[in-house]
Amino acid sequence: MVKHIGIGLMSGTSLDGIDAVLVEIEQVDRDTNVHTLSSLFQPYSDELRQRLLQLCSPDTANIEHITSMNMYLGREYARIVEKLIGNSGVKHEDILFVSSHGQTIYHKPTGTNDLADVPGTLQIGDLSVLSELTGLPVVGDFRTADMAAGGQGAPLISFIDYILFRDENKSRAIQNIGGIGNVTFLPKGAAETEIISFDTGPGNMVIDAVVYHVTDGKQTYDKDGLIAASGNIHAAFLEQLMSHPYFVLTPPKTTGRELFNKHFVDEVMESANQIGLSNEDLVATVTAWTAQTISDSYSRFLETEGRTIDEVIIGGGGSYNPYLLEQLRKNLPGKIVSTHENFAISSDLKEAIGFAILGYHCLLGQYNQLPSATGAGNSVIMGKIAYTQPQAFQRLLSLWGN
Amino acid sequence: MVKHIGIGLMSGTSLDGIDAVLVEIEQVDRDTNVHTLSSLFQPYSDELRQRLLQLCSPDTANIEHITSMNMYLGREYARIVEKLIGNSGVKHEDILFVSSHGQTIYHKPTGTNDLADVPGTLQIGDLSVLSELTGLPVVGDFRTADMAAGGQGAPLISFIDYILFRDENKSRAIQNIGGIGNVTFLPKGAAETEIISFDTGPGNMVIDAVVYHVTDGKQTYDKDGLIAASGNIHAAFLEQLMSHPYFVLTPPKTTGRELFNKHFVDEVMESANQIGLSNEDLVATVTAWTAQTISDSYSRFLETEGRTIDEVIIGGGGSYNPYLLEQLRKNLPGKIVSTHENFAISSDLKEAIGFAILGYHCLLGQYNQLPSATGAGNSVIMGKIAYTQPQAFQRLLSLWGN
Repeated sequence: MVKHIGIGLMSGTSLDGIDAVLVEIEQVDRDTNVHTLSSLFQPYSDELRQRLLQLCSPDTANIEHITSMNMYLGREYARIVEKLIGNSGVKHEDILFVSSHGQTIYHKPTGTNDLADVPGTLQIGDLSVLSELTGLPVVGDFRTADMAAGGQGAPLISFIDYILFRDENKSRAIQNIGGIGNVTFLPKGAAETEIISFDTGPGNMVIDAVVYHVTDGKQTYDKDGLIAASGNIHAAFLEQLMSHPYFVLTPPKTTGRELFNKHFVDEVMESANQIGLSNEDLVATVTAWTAQTISDSYSRFLETEGRTIDEVIIGGGGSYNPYLLEQLRKNLPGKIVSTHENFAISSDLKEAIGFAILGYHCLLGQYNQLPSATGAGNSVIMGKIAYTQPQAFQRLLSLWGN
Repeated sequence: MVKHIGIGLMSGTSLDGIDAVLVEIEQVDRDTNVHTLSSLFQPYSDELRQRLLQLCSPDTANIEHITSMNMYLGREYARIVEKLIGNSGVKHEDILFVSSHGQTIYHKPTGTNDLADVPGTLQIGDLSVLSELTGLPVVGDFRTADMAAGGQGAPLISFIDYILFRDENKSRAIQNIGGIGNVTFLPKGAAETEIISFDTGPGNMVIDAVVYHVTDGKQTYDKDGLIAASGNIHAAFLEQLMSHPYFVLTPPKTTGRELFNKHFVDEVMESANQIGLSNEDLVATVTAWTAQTISDSYSRFLETEGRTIDEVIIGGGGSYNPYLLEQLRKNLPGKIVSTHENFAISSDLKEAIGFAILGYHCLLGQYNQLPSATGAGNSVIMGKIAYTQPQAFQRLLSLWGN
């Protein structure tokens, strides 16, 4: 049995900040167990967020600023790693590696393959800077390897779900409820090729937008599902919402924020006004709808051809909404509906933990991506490795059997 | 004794194309011997050069195009690697690695360290794409590691000179004559800290510009030094040119193209007209001047404090100008003046060979940069490593002792 300590860093496209997690990873053949030892979240300053926003758009991104920010974020990540290690009580010399997703400033999943139109993705936060300032080996910049094999560079979470949650005796659906909802289906004893993943539809984004509207901007989300819990579901309006054409599209399918955006929410608000729905009833109904889009997609696309789901494991911000969970349990009779926390994995930290896992597999020279999820033509080992000091290199040599 | 085969790729800031070289590297402790087995130069197409030029300027660089071009160049490099291997007759399985400099699209050696003004450098041509398409381990993206340690990310060539040319019994000056002239001084038996390097002044850029003028654009350089050889050196004008303040500045010093640019050449042309110099005499004089800026800098800055130079080894385009070499030999009595070709190293291929060496040192976990040359606060191992397939990883494991 191999057992190592590593650090995972994730900064998401929401540009809210950096999640850092220090984990112990045990690997027995292809079985990987992860224990969180310490974690922290470092929000981006307003100035940094504004700068990053500028870099994400072709109209305002400037090559000099990209060059600078790549170095600056490397330094920022290093500060967070040092803080995380300091808080954890774990000794620096006991840490094998840092794995960093980086900050995506551009993602172009498709293109004509012409000179200026090759699919690609750009994550910044230089790995060598992070290695030099922490003294640790660093892995990162994962997504281009998948795209080199024809994949879309996303989703990477399906592989992580496979590592964390596959089971010999239970078929599991790992349901993330972030802004968008997406599921990874892991049949019992699944081979990598049997895994199905797709976006189920909206996650919290419509609920959050409606709550923002009905509270005149005082709330950005329905904390603890309290508003929904005080209302009643309007059956006819729920049915109307379910008629959106996305839900009958056959997977593989993805939805960005464009299908359920402000325009969609404006229409929802207008319809609700016409029916005369109370604020509470409206929030209850869109929450019930979000739950139903998930459960319906299971019966429509997953529990077919003799397949069944034994357990549903909810993650993302939606897992902290008891009303949403209640609706899901109601819609999924006979199935265990649990959350990531039931497996000692914080939903908030899942991605950072996931990147620690991806980095570890890269260092071990093992595939860390699922072609069936990303659309790649073959499996690849994603990630690039940097070590700027011989003692950092020595840590890897110890892993590699020297 | 360790002996391996690797590939070096270099695409310079002149955007002319890609030099590729397949080399055998023998390493005995810190002694590295390199033998060139095969090479090729692949010019960029006009369209690609135009696209790259756009990416190099803050006014025209577009984040979507940068993202695309990073992937496109990875594919382009892979095509060249496959062609090089095919031409060489060397078996694919006998090749340990590819080392790629990448295409610099921005280099910012200094800055205030404020959010948008951190020193940095950006080389594109994705390493994972290159690894996936060739099946080989890839090293690249060297310069940020040096900058993480406070260096300017350049010059990297001094370390390569140190590896290729240091000698226990001879003090050597390795003189590059590209657009700019620069020297690496390697005292006999030099320790890394004793190495001195600086820009001596103009290389070919003033000669080339003057030749372009006097031939009305028919020649872009003085082929074989023939124009200069048919003229006479004008002593007073030579003395006037030598009075430029750059030459008395104490090293460390660098000059970009800004000191000896079009404006400078316009002044030279005007002065020459006033004196009534013939075209041939003018070319002879600026060539002699270029030689004298080099030899003077040796006596002024290198052969001091009891140090002497035994041998001068010329490289770069200037090494192919017999008249320039003749002038240098005249100015450096008692010293051997040879060229890289005397050491079985093609001047044209030196940088590509150099990056193969840098990549090899990175894979061995050995420092591959000279702080005294780049201004870094400490030594670092430059480079990032990508392998996308287990068989590529296995090649590295064989290097690492498994």
